[in-house]
Amino acid sequence: MPESIPHDSVGIVQPRTVHFDQPLTLASGDVLDQYDLVYETYGDLNPERSNAVLVCHALSGSHHAAGYHHPSDGKAGWWDSFIGPGRVIDTNRFHVVSSNNLGGCDGSTGPTTVNPATGKQYGPDFPIVTVDDWVASQARLADVLDISQWAAVIGGSLGGMQAMQWAIDYPDRIRHAIMIACAPKLSAQNIAFNEVARQAIRTDPDFYDGRYYERAVEPRRGLRLARMLGHITYLSDDLMSEKFGRDLREGKINFDYGVEFQVESYLRYQADSFVGKFDANTYLLMTKVLDYFDPAAKTGGDLSAAFRDVTADSLVISFTSDWRFASHRSREIVKALHDNDLNVSYAEVKSHQGHDAFLLKIQQYIDVLGTYLDRIASTHPS
Amino acid sequence: MPESIPHDSVGIVQPRTVHFDQPLTLASGDVLDQYDLVYETYGDLNPERSNAVLVCHALSGSHHAAGYHHPSDGKAGWWDSFIGPGRVIDTNRFHVVSSNNLGGCDGSTGPTTVNPATGKQYGPDFPIVTVDDWVASQARLADVLDISQWAAVIGGSLGGMQAMQWAIDYPDRIRHAIMIACAPKLSAQNIAFNEVARQAIRTDPDFYDGRYYERAVEPRRGLRLARMLGHITYLSDDLMSEKFGRDLREGKINFDYGVEFQVESYLRYQADSFVGKFDANTYLLMTKVLDYFDPAAKTGGDLSAAFRDVTADSLVISFTSDWRFASHRSREIVKALHDNDLNVSYAEVKSHQGHDAFLLKIQQYIDVLGTYLDRIASTHPS
Repeated sequence: MPESIPHDSVGIVQPRTVHFDQPLTLASGDVLDQYDLVYETYGDLNPERSNAVLVCHALSGSHHAAGYHHPSDGKAGWWDSFIGPGRVIDTNRFHVVSSNNLGGCDGSTGPTTVNPATGKQYGPDFPIVTVDDWVASQARLADVLDISQWAAVIGGSLGGMQAMQWAIDYPDRIRHAIMIACAPKLSAQNIAFNEVARQAIRTDPDFYDGRYYERAVEPRRGLRLARMLGHITYLSDDLMSEKFGRDLREGKINFDYGVEFQVESYLRYQADSFVGKFDANTYLLMTKVLDYFDPAAKTGGDLSAAFRDVTADSLVISFTSDWRFASHRSREIVKALHDNDLNVSYAEVKSHQGHDAFLLKIQQYIDVLGTYLDRIASTHPS
Repeated sequence: MPESIPHDSVGIVQPRTVHFDQPLTLASGDVLDQYDLVYETYGDLNPERSNAVLVCHALSGSHHAAGYHHPSDGKAGWWDSFIGPGRVIDTNRFHVVSSNNLGGCDGSTGPTTVNPATGKQYGPDFPIVTVDDWVASQARLADVLDISQWAAVIGGSLGGMQAMQWAIDYPDRIRHAIMIACAPKLSAQNIAFNEVARQAIRTDPDFYDGRYYERAVEPRRGLRLARMLGHITYLSDDLMSEKFGRDLREGKINFDYGVEFQVESYLRYQADSFVGKFDANTYLLMTKVLDYFDPAAKTGGDLSAAFRDVTADSLVISFTSDWRFASHRSREIVKALHDNDLNVSYAEVKSHQGHDAFLLKIQQYIDVLGTYLDRIASTHPS
């Protein structure tokens, strides 16, 4: 429970759900006949309906980006330190919308949802979605909310990829794309890590081809390994060294397979606390969304050509120690936007926190983001 | 089967086994009452017995470093391209000795060996060994072979750590230490990757606390994951991109969980071909040997102090794209040797092959190693 809710918090927030009956044809060709999207909003929409900002979440995030769900809620939303009255994404100025992505496990329709056609949870029958599909579903949500144009779409990691896809697919509906710690597509190494995570889950004997719900089990071992591996890629080697070094939990080597080094304890803790809170089929799906993201695939690998209809201004931010999506990947985006004579701001933020830096209040990062958002807030839509 | 055995191959080689009855007290305090070491030799020992070179293997290597075991043997030893008459480790000049490390699964006593005390395979009862223990057992092997001093001890990765430990523990018995692609100790990130590999094996339901032999099963799923993960860390991001890029095996995305990208196919192949050939308890043990290696632990973290009794000349080689044991880790070794006014040669070899580069014939690498070995061959022991 928060000791007391800080004055610059958005406070107690209430998720809402929209049900969509209009079928959504996915990039795979599959059709979702109907689905729900759960979302939260923070701050008021202005009378001109011009101050809406869409925050997109990454792999294991959710619609709950800021505030608390009840007064005794021990944990604020995943980007709470960024979103609030007077905070960098200032809810006194912006109307922030945050939805759980389709295929998620936090309320939007996904593998854990009951499939109305069968009366059972979708599990592996839930279709593989893509960033394009997410953006299409978010556009429908914007329709329901009567938001014809976002002041900005903003996200880190997989969230940044959604901002990029918004700029490509709906140039009239986005004024600014803010892409943080992302890449225009995954590298072979990125895919390789995802593949190990998937194999961990899929070869867990409790996976049952994804139909584990029916047996009231979960591929916990596999999901645990996937999460441990994820955490290694979220942190930099330097940060791990600084945080844990080779410190021994009991001050001595025990010559056994229990936890000996602090870093082992950290990984096991992170893994154990993830399992039970996140769904394994959803994890698989999210890794596929990442693997498939490649907007330049439609233009023969030419990212500049993929951006040819983009009109939004962009802010691209990368972090020096991020080896998952390194700065040179962000510069590919910047170059391709420049090739289209678009307004692009780019900042490489010095940090030793690795990929996770995008979630952290790093002064240079906050300054860059704050300055850019100030500019958006003070500019009226053309 | 080799089409025909190349003229500069060591040809058909025969492993030999030495049985040791004198108990070996390990770093853990455990005692191995008796054990076998299996080894191979290539090239002749000179009458002065001064041209012996010990080659030390890495995690999944063995004593079989060069040549073929029979005329229809399809695969040469793991460092065959380096060892042979006229090759860089020239068996016309050197008597090369290569032994399987204690705890291995290729003939030396290890978890798969029958424990004479119980009549069953050791499994998890095999004690955790360390690099110190290996070097002590190799010294006993040298005694049996009547080699009082190695012209050089050479190894890459975990093999380089053995060369370093030789220089520390037996200054009178080693003239040159050649340490390739190694580090003076693992980083937190290195340990983290090992921990995920261990957790993969140990949480496999077929692990049975290491007593899987008795049930005629193997923790194949876990070992597979460990190997996939290992391979990611052996290659550089660049090499993976060059080798696989985002190439699709069937030229199109299938929206399913089969193999889609070439890199997935590569990892699954590597993993599948490892399982059945390597023992899971041994894999666990090897990761522990790596984690525990830290010669400076005895001198309060001061590597220069740890080297104070070293007299050997050294060659240290690192590779630009090796992110498992990056060049700056090699420079820590070089600096600490310099602090002791020792003769050290250091080369950072430009390569894009990642950690695996130490196994590959890269011209600059071969030149550096060859020049150094020429000097050893032409220098008589003092």
